[in-house]
Amino acid sequence: MLRYECKMDPLVLLTVLFITGLIVESMTGAIAAGEHKMDLFGVIVVASVTAFGGGVIRDILLGKSPMLIIAKPELLFLTSSAALVMVLIARYFSKLKWLFLGLDALGLVTFSIVGAIRAQDMGFGPGVASIAGITTGVFGGILRDVLCNRIPLAFQKELYASVSIASVWLYLGLERLGAPASLSVPVTLALGFFLRMLAVKYDWRIPTFVYKANS
Amino acid sequence: MLRYECKMDPLVLLTVLFITGLIVESMTGAIAAGEHKMDLFGVIVVASVTAFGGGVIRDILLGKSPMLIIAKPELLFLTSSAALVMVLIARYFSKLKWLFLGLDALGLVTFSIVGAIRAQDMGFGPGVASIAGITTGVFGGILRDVLCNRIPLAFQKELYASVSIASVWLYLGLERLGAPASLSVPVTLALGFFLRMLAVKYDWRIPTFVYKANS
Amino acid sequence: MLRYECKMDPLVLLTVLFITGLIVESMTGAIAAGEHKMDLFGVIVVASVTAFGGGVIRDILLGKSPMLIIAKPELLFLTSSAALVMVLIARYFSKLKWLFLGLDALGLVTFSIVGAIRAQDMGFGPGVASIAGITTGVFGGILRDVLCNRIPLAFQKELYASVSIASVWLYLGLERLGAPASLSVPVTLALGFFLRMLAVKYDWRIPTFVYKANS
Repeated sequence: MLRYECKMDPLVLLTVLFITGLIVESMTGAIAAGEHKMDLFGVIVVASVTAFGGGVIRDILLGKSPMLIIAKPELLFLTSSAALVMVLIARYFSKLKWLFLGLDALGLVTFSIVGAIRAQDMGFGPGVASIAGITTGVFGGILRDVLCNRIPLAFQKELYASVSIASVWLYLGLERLGAPASLSVPVTLALGFFLRMLAVKYDWRIPTFVYKANS
Repeated sequence: MLRYECKMDPLVLLTVLFITGLIVESMTGAIAAGEHKMDLFGVIVVASVTAFGGGVIRDILLGKSPMLIIAKPELLFLTSSAALVMVLIARYFSKLKWLFLGLDALGLVTFSIVGAIRAQDMGFGPGVASIAGITTGVFGGILRDVLCNRIPLAFQKELYASVSIASVWLYLGLERLGAPASLSVPVTLALGFFLRMLAVKYDWRIPTFVYKANS
Repeated sequence: MLRYECKMDPLVLLTVLFITGLIVESMTGAIAAGEHKMDLFGVIVVASVTAFGGGVIRDILLGKSPMLIIAKPELLFLTSSAALVMVLIARYFSKLKWLFLGLDALGLVTFSIVGAIRAQDMGFGPGVASIAGITTGVFGGILRDVLCNRIPLAFQKELYASVSIASVWLYLGLERLGAPASLSVPVTLALGFFLRMLAVKYDWRIPTFVYKANS
């Protein structure tokens, strides 16, 4: 009970950031849909799949039911509205790029932590928690890119997925060292956020594998 | 009991139309596979995924088990046969276009209603029933297009998905108003069908979002 | 009990071949990722999805829980390592082509048999066992190709999927005739393997369906 209370603050923080993450992920989905000239239905579906898809795949893997989108279908209003707002403000999007990247980085780290916690709450160990965290963090964007018929950005771009992995392992490591959530959550959020922002700013990449058939 | 009996007729109608929908969806899958030069195995898989895929994704989201394809695997003979028949008659396909579009429209509305009913039977409210209906109606075609490596048509074409949404909401609305299934099912089928046919004939579209990066 | 003991040998054989299959499937995933210039994270994810994806989709369809990847997350070290080894030896890959094709053929037949057995163990009949076997055999590669944004090879190439179907039906047929697993497993492995190798060597294909819109 006491432990739960002392976790309250970071959980509230996580919830606020999780909602932010849903909104930002929806907006990246809307932008991707717009790049492929979809109609407003396509925009809303791609946005919602981007926002909820990582969690859905995680829950499928964990055998967890009901999923968030079924337990709280009203969240679709949130993601649909976020997508339509992005359609309206898209012309200003290039000016908001860094605000957007910052929120996206927070969302990525939040989703990763939330996914790992979900697996832990079900009694799984660090291996499954890692799978759950990374899946939650990056598979929404992977589904978005599959629906938009392009190679997933997470497989090619600046440390996107690596930040997810690093965040999950930092969080799990801090917890194993006995850190309370009031410490492990904000520390992970801060370090994950800065790692991602530095990676974008300096175009850090992990090595690429290039293979040509019939070499 | 009485209510069930008075629902019998529309349920028989729905079942007949559902089978029709499976056949027509398989055929659209076969055509898409042929446009991408697949072999007959690919034709059968894409056709079956198109026919059953929407229901499978709905059942995954709802946590419903067993799925239709597992409860009645013999239905694969139906979808495989429909796919192979389409291969044989493909040369006449352009002449049958309107017959095909009509059956496809009926299938779309039927799948949408059936999906919503499935969620209601599990005790879910109108929000989840909407998700279930739309998923059943359009995600088979979305999976078909992903397997064929193209942008899903449902995100770009004439009101396809909008007809699914409108049908689900009309059906749920009529039911909330107290209409028996013997009224709500045929009315929804008729209106959904005409909306879709008019949309195809007059090329109605909902607004498109076009976004260019680096604008 | 006696039956289980007499099945031990083929089960050990299947397990060894299953592990081999995971490794080889990971390596085909790594090659596909390299053909699309992915970074090492993308290589590992595509490799792992290729190795585990068929089984995951089968377990989703069957409603089976927990999935292998959740029950034994440490297997991810195996698939990740196999992927990274492939990155290191890719320059020699063309010289190892036939070794690789042979192991891949064994993996395909093994996955197909294992999938069918999984469904049988759950009490399903031959229809569902066929679906489970084929899904396990070919859907890992289909997911790999979807993530790499290309038409699934299994829909176009030399009998890949047909070998999976033939293996499942041969295995189920031998079992129905009363053959013990010590006979049905090695016979299916041998015949499936040779069918696949002959198909590759002589470029056997099943008929292709080519459809042009607006013909």
